[in-house]
Amino acid sequence: MTANIEAAISALSHLDIDTKPASLKARSRDFFWYSPVLKDRLDHVMADFAVSPKSEAEVIEVLKVCYAHDVPVTARGTGTGNYGQAMPLAGGCVLHLNQMNAIKDISPGRLVVEPGALLKDIDAATKAHSGQELRMFSSTWATATIGGFIAGGSGGVGSVHWGALRDVGNIIRLRVVTMEEEPQIIEITGEDLHRVSHAYGTNGIITELEIPLAAAYDWEELFVTFDDFEEALRYSYDLASCDGLLLKLVTLFEPPIAHDYFQRVKPHVTPEKTVLALMVAPQSMPGFETHLAHWSGEVIYRKGHTDWPRDPGLIFEYGWNHTTLRALKVDPSITYLQVGIGTEDPVGRALRLREEFSPEVLLHIEVTRQNGKVGFGSLSLVKFTTEERLDEIVRIHEAMGAPNFNPHRYTLEEGGRQSVDARQLEFKRQADPKGLLNPGKMIAWDDPDWTYDRMYAWPGMTKAAE
Amino acid sequence: MTANIEAAISALSHLDIDTKPASLKARSRDFFWYSPVLKDRLDHVMADFAVSPKSEAEVIEVLKVCYAHDVPVTARGTGTGNYGQAMPLAGGCVLHLNQMNAIKDISPGRLVVEPGALLKDIDAATKAHSGQELRMFSSTWATATIGGFIAGGSGGVGSVHWGALRDVGNIIRLRVVTMEEEPQIIEITGEDLHRVSHAYGTNGIITELEIPLAAAYDWEELFVTFDDFEEALRYSYDLASCDGLLLKLVTLFEPPIAHDYFQRVKPHVTPEKTVLALMVAPQSMPGFETHLAHWSGEVIYRKGHTDWPRDPGLIFEYGWNHTTLRALKVDPSITYLQVGIGTEDPVGRALRLREEFSPEVLLHIEVTRQNGKVGFGSLSLVKFTTEERLDEIVRIHEAMGAPNFNPHRYTLEEGGRQSVDARQLEFKRQADPKGLLNPGKMIAWDDPDWTYDRMYAWPGMTKAAE
Ligand SMILES: Cc1cc2nc3c(=O)[nH]c(=O)nc-3n(C[C@H](O)[C@H](O)[C@H](O)COP(=O)(O)OP(=O)(O)OC[C@H]3O[C@@H](n4cnc5c(N)ncnc54)[C@H](O)[C@@H]3O)c2cc1C
Ligand SMILES: Cc1cc2nc3c(=O)[nH]c(=O)nc-3n(C[C@H](O)[C@H](O)[C@H](O)COP(=O)(O)OP(=O)(O)OC[C@H]3O[C@@H](n4cnc5c(N)ncnc54)[C@H](O)[C@@H]3O)c2cc1C
Repeated sequence: MTANIEAAISALSHLDIDTKPASLKARSRDFFWYSPVLKDRLDHVMADFAVSPKSEAEVIEVLKVCYAHDVPVTARGTGTGNYGQAMPLAGGCVLHLNQMNAIKDISPGRLVVEPGALLKDIDAATKAHSGQELRMFSSTWATATIGGFIAGGSGGVGSVHWGALRDVGNIIRLRVVTMEEEPQIIEITGEDLHRVSHAYGTNGIITELEIPLAAAYDWEELFVTFDDFEEALRYSYDLASCDGLLLKLVTLFEPPIAHDYFQRVKPHVTPEKTVLALMVAPQSMPGFETHLAHWSGEVIYRKGHTDWPRDPGLIFEYGWNHTTLRALKVDPSITYLQVGIGTEDPVGRALRLREEFSPEVLLHIEVTRQNGKVGFGSLSLVKFTTEERLDEIVRIHEAMGAPNFNPHRYTLEEGGRQSVDARQLEFKRQADPKGLLNPGKMIAWDDPDWTYDRMYAWPGMTKAAE
Repeated sequence: MTANIEAAISALSHLDIDTKPASLKARSRDFFWYSPVLKDRLDHVMADFAVSPKSEAEVIEVLKVCYAHDVPVTARGTGTGNYGQAMPLAGGCVLHLNQMNAIKDISPGRLVVEPGALLKDIDAATKAHSGQELRMFSSTWATATIGGFIAGGSGGVGSVHWGALRDVGNIIRLRVVTMEEEPQIIEITGEDLHRVSHAYGTNGIITELEIPLAAAYDWEELFVTFDDFEEALRYSYDLASCDGLLLKLVTLFEPPIAHDYFQRVKPHVTPEKTVLALMVAPQSMPGFETHLAHWSGEVIYRKGHTDWPRDPGLIFEYGWNHTTLRALKVDPSITYLQVGIGTEDPVGRALRLREEFSPEVLLHIEVTRQNGKVGFGSLSLVKFTTEERLDEIVRIHEAMGAPNFNPHRYTLEEGGRQSVDARQLEFKRQADPKGLLNPGKMIAWDDPDWTYDRMYAWPGMTKAAE
């Protein structure tokens, strides 16, 4: 099966197609370079062409032509994923959905939208329409698309109230085009949503999404500091357990993260301070203050009330994966891990992790709802030395009962639960019989007997030029 | 200290005052007769007059005059409380707030309202204004006032998402008039809210409330049945643990409650069925169905979709204290208990309670959020025989680790945690130095050394006519 790139390009030449090396290179990359491991392996990856469909009909046309000519197709929102999800490992076509960004319908609690709409544009539209907003968004709100978030993300700002994207109820319906001789349009609901959401575009191209909305508020944005790390952990757990307080973000940074990596916060904290970044609904501020009075924490910044010489900007751009970004900018040797801490004694578990690893690994805790309980996850910052040490750190975490969703891997399985998802695989057989959709990202497809004893290296990847 | 009723009436004669025995009797009663114990003790209770102020200034005037003439004052919303909270044990004045029902301000997430507004009128106004509604309401939504709910209630429909009324953040501010020589107006916020909310009007008269609002939805109303009681318990816990599903009510009825006491449900269930009453946001219905498919439960009724010969009406009027009301109507020997089951293995605890007591006591479980966790409470139906047996049932519950909030008592302490609330008491010294506000309801005021070894009988109560 050899891709006939020229034939595909010529058949699609009436569409918005891009073959210019500079822009094509940009459209072939994402934030994979967060990981020194992925940087090493994926840096050379490049598509042969990109196409920006303007409608579902054009998506169908692209998939049909590429199917006929055996050309791999990798969907792209804005390429803010950070495991190389959007990178075309075998070259071929990048299907760039940036022009399919219509907001189609807004009703109470619901939105129907095209995949290329930016999260921030959605929030602006739903807020103006009826005081609504997305339940949750990735901290790349300003730049990421809803299609990329659903296909490549896992949760984010809002997960402290609504849980993870995969939790039942957080996606209502996805409309998907398959990659067959005659592409089909499938409306995906219910259990089947797991086959397509968070599938990195390996199981069809999402052309429309229906998702729930929540009431929009002018969220208060705060930094709170604690002298004592353990108290800060207990506070963040307790705060998120206050059912009467409406919160959108509860993030905790082990010292000296805030001091060392947040340039605009640095003048206001010492290296010893544990810092929390919070988003609180305005109607919950009085209750928030009542609750805080029982703790020794101090509000050092409240947007609109505190006058810092340099404004810190959007508070959520300190949390989730933005923490890593900020650290990387100051110290390029920093990378990160995604650690599950769970809901059983998360404070104790976090303390034990700190004892084991600090300062080589620093906890950056996101408080979220996990199956009805308050729990912790950590997007821990890691001072990178070698791949071997990184793997060892992952192993020690797992031995301590803290599962890792390894961000230094580009496959679905290795970034997830390290096991074949039979439903995803079965669906792929039907939706992508030639295996042309984002190839190399689903181990189950390529090598169902893979044992996960080392990093998977997809044999089909284009080789780096010597 | 003898009340000079005549002098007070004459000083207030320019206000809307009522001394007619028939209407006065109605205004002196609430749903105390739910309890055979209270029925026995309070049936004769009657005010000397009622007054309906139209403004805060008139409230002040009433309190000032009654203070001067040593006349007890008992506030009243609509008298749907069921522990005799609104009953004037020492006679005197009933301060009926039904005419102070203005909705003063609605903004995103917030409402400012007078105490006499009905819950249902509030929801209609906030929904029309900006698609908002109360976070939670008592199942007496159609008849109860917001002032009575805050001063006498504890939570209700919505507590499965937002927790209890007492949880920080569920009340923002209360404006209160004290009963002193010169009544003062106090704005209560923060920690102090505990001194006035759920104080049965013993600590001042609420003249304005500020409370949070949530987004309003056209809630789906459902009855779901299970053959297996334990599975139904596990399901209700699991459902409420789905963070991505927006729920307003999760209520479970041990068999044969639904069959025996819900006349319009009876034709559709057997006595063996465990029945759940649910309210689900419309955008969460697809996810709800996906989740239910993993269980053997069956939707027997969905409002607007199911055609029952006799419409069951509002679904929440089967839950909370309405369950007791329906049972009482069919079998006047039924009374009830309020049992805390908590968040630690609530399914196991509920099963043990059933094993101990059924069918003398039938579980009616309300699933609520309790300090960040999903938990159960039970407004258990009790087949009443004697007061001694009722007390024994309470004792066995407590020995099994299931605390009781005894609804067969008319004092704050006995219906609550059976201990003096020092903050409430301290505040009462200041706000009601003569002890004229709803006398007999706060043991701490009358007899701080009371030991709770038997039912408290307030010595100041007017005697029943022979
Ligand atoms: C600084 C930073 C912070 C981040 N914070 C978060 C966070 O808080 N939470 C979180 O979950 N993630 C986070 N991420 C990663 C996250 O996946 C992205 O931010 C974003 O949600 C992806 O959107 P995108 O438009 O950039 O998608 P892309 O990166 O373009 O694509 C993501 C994946 O989805 C696939 N895809 C895109 N569109 C479609 C489609 N229409 N149909 C099928 N498949 C498609 C792509 O092939 C790719 O596999 C962060 C990343 C960075 C760099
Ligand atoms: C069928 C039924 C179902 C019920 N369901 C629930 C439920 O789901 N949840 C729940 O919490 N309760 C429930 N209750 C009890 C509940 O307290 C009432 O339904 C309601 O919230 C009280 O409102 P009301 O206007 O009737 O108050 P009232 O009964 O008139 O008063 C309640 C108490 O508040 C005081 N009060 C009233 N207004 C003021 C004021 N302005 N300032 C100071 N004090 C004041 C009164 O003195 C009294 O002590 C139920 C009762 C019944 C009969």
